[in-house]
Amino acid sequence: MTSTNAATTLPADHPLVDGRTASSALVTTYRGERGDVTPVWFMRQAGRSLPEYRELRVGTQMLDACLDPELSSEITLQPVRRHGVDAGIFFSDIVIPLKLAGVDVDIVPGRGPVLGKPVRTAADVAALPTLDPSALAPVAAGVARTVAQLGTTPLIGFAGAPFTLAAYLVEGGPSKDHLRARTLMHADPDAWAGLLDWAATVTGQFLRAQVVAGASAAQLFDSWVGSLSLADYTAHVQRHSAKALSAVAELGVPRVHFGVGSGEVLEAMHEIGADVMGVDWRIPLAEASRRLGGGVPLQGNVDPALLAAPWPVLERHVLDVLESGKAAPAHVLNLGHGVPPETDPDVLTRIVELVHSR
Amino acid sequence: MTSTNAATTLPADHPLVDGRTASSALVTTYRGERGDVTPVWFMRQAGRSLPEYRELRVGTQMLDACLDPELSSEITLQPVRRHGVDAGIFFSDIVIPLKLAGVDVDIVPGRGPVLGKPVRTAADVAALPTLDPSALAPVAAGVARTVAQLGTTPLIGFAGAPFTLAAYLVEGGPSKDHLRARTLMHADPDAWAGLLDWAATVTGQFLRAQVVAGASAAQLFDSWVGSLSLADYTAHVQRHSAKALSAVAELGVPRVHFGVGSGEVLEAMHEIGADVMGVDWRIPLAEASRRLGGGVPLQGNVDPALLAAPWPVLERHVLDVLESGKAAPAHVLNLGHGVPPETDPDVLTRIVELVHSR
Repeated sequence: MTSTNAATTLPADHPLVDGRTASSALVTTYRGERGDVTPVWFMRQAGRSLPEYRELRVGTQMLDACLDPELSSEITLQPVRRHGVDAGIFFSDIVIPLKLAGVDVDIVPGRGPVLGKPVRTAADVAALPTLDPSALAPVAAGVARTVAQLGTTPLIGFAGAPFTLAAYLVEGGPSKDHLRARTLMHADPDAWAGLLDWAATVTGQFLRAQVVAGASAAQLFDSWVGSLSLADYTAHVQRHSAKALSAVAELGVPRVHFGVGSGEVLEAMHEIGADVMGVDWRIPLAEASRRLGGGVPLQGNVDPALLAAPWPVLERHVLDVLESGKAAPAHVLNLGHGVPPETDPDVLTRIVELVHSR
Repeated sequence: MTSTNAATTLPADHPLVDGRTASSALVTTYRGERGDVTPVWFMRQAGRSLPEYRELRVGTQMLDACLDPELSSEITLQPVRRHGVDAGIFFSDIVIPLKLAGVDVDIVPGRGPVLGKPVRTAADVAALPTLDPSALAPVAAGVARTVAQLGTTPLIGFAGAPFTLAAYLVEGGPSKDHLRARTLMHADPDAWAGLLDWAATVTGQFLRAQVVAGASAAQLFDSWVGSLSLADYTAHVQRHSAKALSAVAELGVPRVHFGVGSGEVLEAMHEIGADVMGVDWRIPLAEASRRLGGGVPLQGNVDPALLAAPWPVLERHVLDVLESGKAAPAHVLNLGHGVPPETDPDVLTRIVELVHSR
């Protein structure tokens, strides 16, 4: 967890090793130090809320854009230039490792990831392909291009947690309560464990590729974890999330874990080896910090619904979040979920200015 | 809260007053008494999981079916006959009071309630129509027909909570995080309060009409409350839910309140005047009981995902739920959410037999 440790495993020209990002506000805050300024970035800052993104994406399918190093790099950089945020988050998608492994998956606009053939039986699980590390070359190339231009601004790599990936794989697409996935969890625990182990492996490879190529931090997203009871999470999910995150453990980058609606499982999610916990908008940071024992740096949790409210209302909310975040040892300001596509990007810039001015 | 009290306000031939249902397992359990047998019913037991329902509904739109006393009654009775459950739940929809007030709303198959014109401004709120009590006649007639045939089996009346109704009204249809609704809550708290007050009034009228016409209990559903922080719930929602439930307060029927993903707001939801709390599948009943101080009868919370698992797996889960429910003073077994449409109805019957055999 020290830069010495990182130096032994990351390339010498990695931004975290060669001195570019190790003392950045983001990385030091993730390490638990409270600096003069609260760093800020936004989940889904790279994407549909930006006109320059929509322009760039014309004629290119989502997953193709993710796998085009020039495009993924440029899209990653757009919000950093525009908003002055303290981090880039690599433009990609949590299903990219599935796609690169050879799973028939695509992103259907307005719907989300859709599988050609859902994975619903032990035989389906056994037939899942392995992910050849060389297939991750476009991801690594995109990251490398990005960090070459980011300078001292750290890049965050990310991946989806095994449960969220499994939910897509079993359901065949987005779903409300992930009933089919959760049925499989109980109906065939061995097939389920095999599926989550596979997902942990490929998503860990994806996360590791980004870190090795230059990302200074790693975030694991468990978008759908909120549909689980604590008992189901600990019995059927937790160890697989831990495996996914362990893929970058010895690289020495800060590891962030985030889930939506995670009130019941927040502490258990932290136990997978996360250094920092992302908190959604439902739980005040001070309460999250209390539940986590007071020693965990937090990231969050401006309510995305407030982005469309008049500025004085949003400003007061952001200040409340900053105040609540003081209960944690360190705090990176973010949203409590992703940027809604219809967000006015100027509002995001204004939040960055506000947070940096405090 | 006593039958004497009920007798003074409900008609003398109401099932709760004339002796038919006052000593039923459901009503006595809702009152907090633990009897020899745990009563059981299923949210959405009347509906798409039953072939006899799908047959009856051919050629009839959802809201038309709700407003046809003969149909709504027959559909309500189908699962009582088939499964031997301890209660009927009136077949209707939470948007019925909106429809009867004159709001342009319809149920689009596969999507849910869709509004002709979303309600998004103070002017929109001010223009909402009042609900003439006489418009509720088809609801009352459906309830009356139903209880005439139910005998000693109590009928549960139900309504949607103001927040859930407001979410549909503002969004114009189903949505994921109810962002627009929650934006309005903060951007224009007065318009929001007006909207929720209106929703509380009409949904309270709807609930009261069912109780007066013969329902022996009343359940208020807050399907989307799980998208709220506790602070938002208490500041902007709670008093309106209390108003909705107060519409049946002096009628002396047990009042049940249920929300999905309600872990953060469970205690605050109970404070609106609920006698019984429904619990979703995410929180064990024993934990819910602990959070509620140990004195509140509970309803729930078999995980709907388990309905499609092999019987031995489901059986063990149901027995676990029964065991966990012993932490509460009294327990009505139910699902932790609605019956999925693809559920094998025989599985529901088997659960009833299992619960009644313990």
